[in-house]
Amino acid sequence: MKKLINDPADVVDDALAGMAAAHPELRIDEKNRVILRADAPTPGKVGLVSGGGSGHEPLHGGFVGRGMLDAACAGEVFTSPVPDRILAATTAVDAGAGVLHIVKNYTGDVMNFEMAAELAAAESGTEVVSVVVDDDVAVRDSLYTAGRRGVGGTLVVEKLAGAAAEAGRPLPEVAAVARRANAETRSMGVALTSCTVPAAGRPTFELGEAEMELGIGIHGEPGRRRLPLASAREIAELLVEPLLSDLPYRSGDRVICFVNGMGGTPLLELYVMYNEVARVLRAHGVEVVRSLVGPYVTSLDMAGCSVTVTRVDDELLELWDAPVRTPALNWGV
Amino acid sequence: MKKLINDPADVVDDALAGMAAAHPELRIDEKNRVILRADAPTPGKVGLVSGGGSGHEPLHGGFVGRGMLDAACAGEVFTSPVPDRILAATTAVDAGAGVLHIVKNYTGDVMNFEMAAELAAAESGTEVVSVVVDDDVAVRDSLYTAGRRGVGGTLVVEKLAGAAAEAGRPLPEVAAVARRANAETRSMGVALTSCTVPAAGRPTFELGEAEMELGIGIHGEPGRRRLPLASAREIAELLVEPLLSDLPYRSGDRVICFVNGMGGTPLLELYVMYNEVARVLRAHGVEVVRSLVGPYVTSLDMAGCSVTVTRVDDELLELWDAPVRTPALNWGV
Repeated sequence: MKKLINDPADVVDDALAGMAAAHPELRIDEKNRVILRADAPTPGKVGLVSGGGSGHEPLHGGFVGRGMLDAACAGEVFTSPVPDRILAATTAVDAGAGVLHIVKNYTGDVMNFEMAAELAAAESGTEVVSVVVDDDVAVRDSLYTAGRRGVGGTLVVEKLAGAAAEAGRPLPEVAAVARRANAETRSMGVALTSCTVPAAGRPTFELGEAEMELGIGIHGEPGRRRLPLASAREIAELLVEPLLSDLPYRSGDRVICFVNGMGGTPLLELYVMYNEVARVLRAHGVEVVRSLVGPYVTSLDMAGCSVTVTRVDDELLELWDAPVRTPALNWGV
Repeated sequence: MKKLINDPADVVDDALAGMAAAHPELRIDEKNRVILRADAPTPGKVGLVSGGGSGHEPLHGGFVGRGMLDAACAGEVFTSPVPDRILAATTAVDAGAGVLHIVKNYTGDVMNFEMAAELAAAESGTEVVSVVVDDDVAVRDSLYTAGRRGVGGTLVVEKLAGAAAEAGRPLPEVAAVARRANAETRSMGVALTSCTVPAAGRPTFELGEAEMELGIGIHGEPGRRRLPLASAREIAELLVEPLLSDLPYRSGDRVICFVNGMGGTPLLELYVMYNEVARVLRAHGVEVVRSLVGPYVTSLDMAGCSVTVTRVDDELLELWDAPVRTPALNWGV
């Protein structure tokens, strides 16, 4: 295992200390492993909390800031944060307007966020609504999940709901935006190499020198099938066709297209992939109105990428364009 | 070789086509492989041109936009762009106020930018000033370089000079800012793995499973020495101590600290490194006033990182904070 770390057991705490040092505009509760907007709770505003296992950076901590999340909980690598810590995050961002939990669909995450929501209601009367993200079309049910997994689409849900909350909309409306964002979003990924969990010290799975795994999960969970390594053009078709036929997206639909790096793949290759993905969408008459290219929802050092497509109307597009000020996403005035 | 590409010979053109598709706010001259601000040339403004071999993305094309570069030339992977194409970029951004070339110190780059500057003067009377970036303290003279190499500090030079040009300062002042930025900047990097050039198809060099190369260049050029793989804490000391003693930086100095990923290293590890780098700087009394963490000056899929430190006064700090709107750097209002 070749990693820039100290003791593998300390990797999450060390990275959080690094985030605290690099981002004085955030507040890090190192004891609870919670990353917070420095100005949280924001009076009158619905609080947005997400989180999950570490190893997907910048998801979720890098999306904390104006126009996106109020708090993110960082669990151990690929391990859900415990309910008490989610509760601490929830309480910290509760300004009286309620709190939205954005939860990737993994059994542990769903259970722990649910428990935290119940504790928050019981202990401080905080109203919590949960929205579960399940955008991955690759597999139904898996080692960690009942139903579909939450992957790259989580970024889109956090951005759109974050903009709605920033605009002062009430909790039911913010939750409705999050649900609609999830409903309009589909993703699928491919791995060229495994990731290596620091505490394990060896690759999660083995892939041959000329193989790729289609439909990979962001924890290295098995995908749909193994195939011989193909060209970017062929991979784009293998990823985009199942997405399009799933919702289905139709000719004339306007979409946000997000080509995501899994952590070990450089930007040069992601732009090559974006070009091929855009070509497939064009061939189906799907109009890309906004795009995002980069490593945002990663799987440690895995080489590979995922494609996320979100169908938008004027409202969702306006929420996407709304200003965001976070370490990883930053645009608008 | 496991990469998300088509024909290795097409990787630069395919990636540029992807950039063109993903960034309608830029203009891509695909024939000349030049990435331009859509509004170039900007009346009254000094034009900033940089470029070099591809494989370092987002450097340089991802830094084109308001407050940074007007144009970037993309050569073949790890190969200088030819003078004619640099000339095309130079002419395209010349609004009558002259053009600044920001050139990483590699023999081919320096020669080709020089020739392009002469051609621009002869053909259209464009005044060109060149500033060479040579921030890498690791080695003097190498396979590709007389003197020091230009690495991560290039980003800092482009940002600070870009802000000066955006503010409407004349060419001699913009060039002076670039020179001063370079003079105040030092960098050093480490590789945990080699990169693989697509056209070569195999790693540029071999590193043992428990080895790292200290002082690596961004093309995989040899560094200072090979060492057994060490902890993030030890690596931070091995990178930062030579930087600090080189300028030298002194207790009380204010600096921008930039921890850069080489392409194959995920953000989680970069934050672990940032924490350790900040610790070493603190121990020396050097005050970090701004920071940047992420893969910005990469070496294809190399695993590793570099540390760049720039000493700033109020003027340089104000230029760093000035608004920037590019695909890869985006902040300020």
